Amino acid sequence: MSPVSSEFQRVIDLLAKLPGLGPRSARRVALHLVKRKDAAMLPLAQALEEAASAIRTCTRCGNLDTHNPCAICADNRRDPAAICVVEEVGDLWALERAGVFKGSYHVLGGTLSALEGVGPSDLNIAPLVARASDGIVTEVILAVDATVDGQATAHYLTDQLENAGVKITHLAHGVPVGGELDYLDEGTLAAALKARRTL
Amino acid sequence: MSPVSSEFQRVIDLLAKLPGLGPRSARRVALHLVKRKDAAMLPLAQALEEAASAIRTCTRCGNLDTHNPCAICADNRRDPAAICVVEEVGDLWALERAGVFKGSYHVLGGTLSALEGVGPSDLNIAPLVARASDGIVTEVILAVDATVDGQATAHYLTDQLENAGVKITHLAHGVPVGGELDYLDEGTLAAALKARRTL
Repeated sequence: MSPVSSEFQRVIDLLAKLPGLGPRSARRVALHLVKRKDAAMLPLAQALEEAASAIRTCTRCGNLDTHNPCAICADNRRDPAAICVVEEVGDLWALERAGVFKGSYHVLGGTLSALEGVGPSDLNIAPLVARASDGIVTEVILAVDATVDGQATAHYLTDQLENAGVKITHLAHGVPVGGELDYLDEGTLAAALKARRTL
Repeated sequence: MSPVSSEFQRVIDLLAKLPGLGPRSARRVALHLVKRKDAAMLPLAQALEEAASAIRTCTRCGNLDTHNPCAICADNRRDPAAICVVEEVGDLWALERAGVFKGSYHVLGGTLSALEGVGPSDLNIAPLVARASDGIVTEVILAVDATVDGQATAHYLTDQLENAGVKITHLAHGVPVGGELDYLDEGTLAAALKARRTL
């Protein structure tokens, strides 16, 4: 007989499916929570329920927010002429934390991947082409990951946006700020050298 | 303005306080959940609530279960003469997974720690002494961690149990099964050599 009751086991099983957690860390988290029912377990349950009912996907850009259109799309101080295309909402957050982009976003919801069977129709691509062709947008920045799938997606998007009459740009490759050359891969070093600038 | 809504931020903040998670992994988990509202987010919220209301601490041994006394304490096929003392419920689960101990348990709820200000009154020690003195118990196995705090707690418990008239034992130190000598610390090797046995 398992010493873990079924209610407890269900919490552990659900936690173990979360990214970065396995059966062992899920047990640890579950024990942590059950020892702090009022301080951690019930507040987390309530916060999850509230967030699940309040958060929706922005039908314009694919961002997650409590409003539709999202706060970024609805903000008329932001530049309507520039769209920054990202893979996931987490990437949008990362760019917002950097606080340097003042246009709007477009979340693809992933990258094209032959291996995982993700095709163009699985991603938020057609609405992007429609947005880029509206006559207001002048630049589409492809801020996808510098991975094989990310770059394949960037190439596909460049093709699709060819007739939209917009400038298509991508993020610069180079040495990360604070990065030590000794620890960088050859690809990054080659790209940084190729894109060198006069001081 | 933060791109993350307050409902979302609350989920992230609560997740970031869980053991093994930080702000970055909490964001990743929160995004994973909100993309799977019906498959993961709401079931987790519900499972947490159900577990919080169903699970209680066994007043006899300190185990967590939906019943009080817990299933282990209530199981009359288990040997009432042996108590295995563990620090946390997770340790009890680990021993039950090994499936070799057929007595009852006693969960201390931690270890004595001068640094963290944990004294004997903060642990489940007095009830252990009472249980050990009931005339039925003949052996108390101290299955505490082989850490400084764990061993200090074992010494304190040995003192406290002196007049209970029970045999006090502790887990053997030695080479872990499957362990390679080359990777073991000197303390473990010394303990294993000292406790060597004839084949």
